[in-house]
Amino acid sequence: MMLDEPLITLTTDFGTRDGFVAQMKGVILGINPRARLIDVTHDIEPYSVLEGALVVKGMAPQFPGGTIHVAVVDPGVGSNRRGIVLCTEEQTYVGPDNGLFSLIMSDNRAYEIREIQNPDFIRPEHHPTFHGRDIFAPTAAHLSAGKPFEEVGPLVHDPIMLSIPPVKENAEGLEGAVIYVDRFGNLTSNIDKAKLSRIVDTVCVGNVTIQGLSRFFGEVPEGEAMALINSFGLLEIAINQGNAAKMLGIGKAEPVRVFWT
Amino acid sequence: MMLDEPLITLTTDFGTRDGFVAQMKGVILGINPRARLIDVTHDIEPYSVLEGALVVKGMAPQFPGGTIHVAVVDPGVGSNRRGIVLCTEEQTYVGPDNGLFSLIMSDNRAYEIREIQNPDFIRPEHHPTFHGRDIFAPTAAHLSAGKPFEEVGPLVHDPIMLSIPPVKENAEGLEGAVIYVDRFGNLTSNIDKAKLSRIVDTVCVGNVTIQGLSRFFGEVPEGEAMALINSFGLLEIAINQGNAAKMLGIGKAEPVRVFWT
Amino acid sequence: MMLDEPLITLTTDFGTRDGFVAQMKGVILGINPRARLIDVTHDIEPYSVLEGALVVKGMAPQFPGGTIHVAVVDPGVGSNRRGIVLCTEEQTYVGPDNGLFSLIMSDNRAYEIREIQNPDFIRPEHHPTFHGRDIFAPTAAHLSAGKPFEEVGPLVHDPIMLSIPPVKENAEGLEGAVIYVDRFGNLTSNIDKAKLSRIVDTVCVGNVTIQGLSRFFGEVPEGEAMALINSFGLLEIAINQGNAAKMLGIGKAEPVRVFWT
Repeated sequence: MMLDEPLITLTTDFGTRDGFVAQMKGVILGINPRARLIDVTHDIEPYSVLEGALVVKGMAPQFPGGTIHVAVVDPGVGSNRRGIVLCTEEQTYVGPDNGLFSLIMSDNRAYEIREIQNPDFIRPEHHPTFHGRDIFAPTAAHLSAGKPFEEVGPLVHDPIMLSIPPVKENAEGLEGAVIYVDRFGNLTSNIDKAKLSRIVDTVCVGNVTIQGLSRFFGEVPEGEAMALINSFGLLEIAINQGNAAKMLGIGKAEPVRVFWT
Repeated sequence: MMLDEPLITLTTDFGTRDGFVAQMKGVILGINPRARLIDVTHDIEPYSVLEGALVVKGMAPQFPGGTIHVAVVDPGVGSNRRGIVLCTEEQTYVGPDNGLFSLIMSDNRAYEIREIQNPDFIRPEHHPTFHGRDIFAPTAAHLSAGKPFEEVGPLVHDPIMLSIPPVKENAEGLEGAVIYVDRFGNLTSNIDKAKLSRIVDTVCVGNVTIQGLSRFFGEVPEGEAMALINSFGLLEIAINQGNAAKMLGIGKAEPVRVFWT
Repeated sequence: MMLDEPLITLTTDFGTRDGFVAQMKGVILGINPRARLIDVTHDIEPYSVLEGALVVKGMAPQFPGGTIHVAVVDPGVGSNRRGIVLCTEEQTYVGPDNGLFSLIMSDNRAYEIREIQNPDFIRPEHHPTFHGRDIFAPTAAHLSAGKPFEEVGPLVHDPIMLSIPPVKENAEGLEGAVIYVDRFGNLTSNIDKAKLSRIVDTVCVGNVTIQGLSRFFGEVPEGEAMALINSFGLLEIAINQGNAAKMLGIGKAEPVRVFWT
């Protein structure tokens, strides 16, 4: 689907301070002045592909069909890692082939991936540390202006997938881990709501034991810990009006255990 | 007034890092692709309704008539606090009923408030911790696309108002307090310029005594403290090219005294 | 050149937290609702004109002809420093006359500068500490709506230029200095790639000696220091997947020495 004023979202770990993202915006608007640019975030933890992948997974489904998502969290920039375009039935993703889109691949039944090789999609002089500006931004802009996906380059059948630690299941419950800490200090685990098929008795993390699941923060008194399904669809440990990461002294990789009733 | 490309501003304490704001943007653009989104800030201090209210008070009057302002600083999300739409003669405000818009109500003579109850304005499955995405964003989008305010829900006559500490007046002068510290460390008090009806001899805060009012930072030597009316129309204590909060060791709630000549 | 939907970029040290930038956006859209606003950054280090100048130098050439760039890093706001509009053959710049655009002047052969004096370009009541909102934003908006550059005010022939420490050259090599530290802790020097006319044997900074130049981060092992030409066209010292400023304990003004083979 082609939008009249095509939407291009931008997700990076560039920060905004140095104007790098603005350089990407300039390149896109130079190629397709009708593109509408939406900042998702530029504050992904530097080099954290998993954090980028979670943000993309949470954000992309909210956008209308035809949206093009550019995401650049790219510790391997300049090396021989591939640049790719991923097309699902609804949307298009442009960025490095390092797992950044692997949660999107898991969430979609049908998709195709191509490696960006056609020089028509790339700036003639591209800087080896700035593929965001010189490869991904122009590729997205050309796609938004109607250049066909088929011309991007050859099909890719073996994209890099993220290795998220698997959730262990036994008769008593589940064992997962914290994989992400958000701005509020809320702790996102790798336990998907689909796994929570039985009634939760307790959730244990660090020294804390939480009774059952809450639906929202205000259900427990201020300063108290709770477990809930967050807006990524994952089990989260939070403190009502507090910072769980700081107050519980818990960060990424900390085990999270769920016990059935 | 309906704008051809309606403006929707976004003010939250979500940060940008996690993509939550982008989810709201996707929802709005899915409902009304013609909406033009303007980020105000997503760095309101988490849960600080007063800070959000000050930012909205300062920003909204600068926007053209017809603008819709979505603001979400919402410690009570998921509880039974109401979601509201506030219509002044010029503009529309969408967010929680927790005082976030009470300074706008004080600044406008005529307005109407409705509680968001009509399911046509709300996403069918709304997540109890993310009303920004599931209630406020779609409500703003539908209003921007022409759905009438009258259909939002029942009128609200008792909106929650912020309790800003009152300024005390006596024969010698005024006593207020610091209510906000900005990015530069400038200290905003609750003393409105309308209260400064007489000639100011000194302004006292912490251990510092400041002679009279300045009009701009460069009027005093670098590193020196001054008092001035800031762009919110409130008395502010600042240090020329310095951080008053850090250098004076002063934060919110610190008394600010004004003495007349 | 006039764009149908004119682009206006915004570069400031205002942060986004306080809504100051949003006030500028409101003013612009009130004057020219067709303007398309692009945030470059609002996280320039407060009062750092050099940092702002580098960001503008890096970003502006990526934007299409006709773009108007508003930049406000303005420690002298309210004093008698001039407000200016700079017109190059391609683009327009609006901001204080304090060196913020001096790298753009160095990079362009032909340009004209005018001081903002015409009251038609300025808000009737302008606040002495907020020229960004009351002078620069409306000037940019009026220019974007077609008001001619010639009407801004009188020509300026002596704009303030930044004093960047010069690079010393001798038979053995070059001596420059770190002038900027980016989000990743990468150290930008004042040594332009045009100066690197001979083959580099080593680059020395702090206690570190780096062999030759790299083209991209991944060329050296993780955690190792390298020197490369960055996307500003300047010599940079970086650590692959690390923060050079922190790991080497190096900041602005640190000498950077280049030795020829």
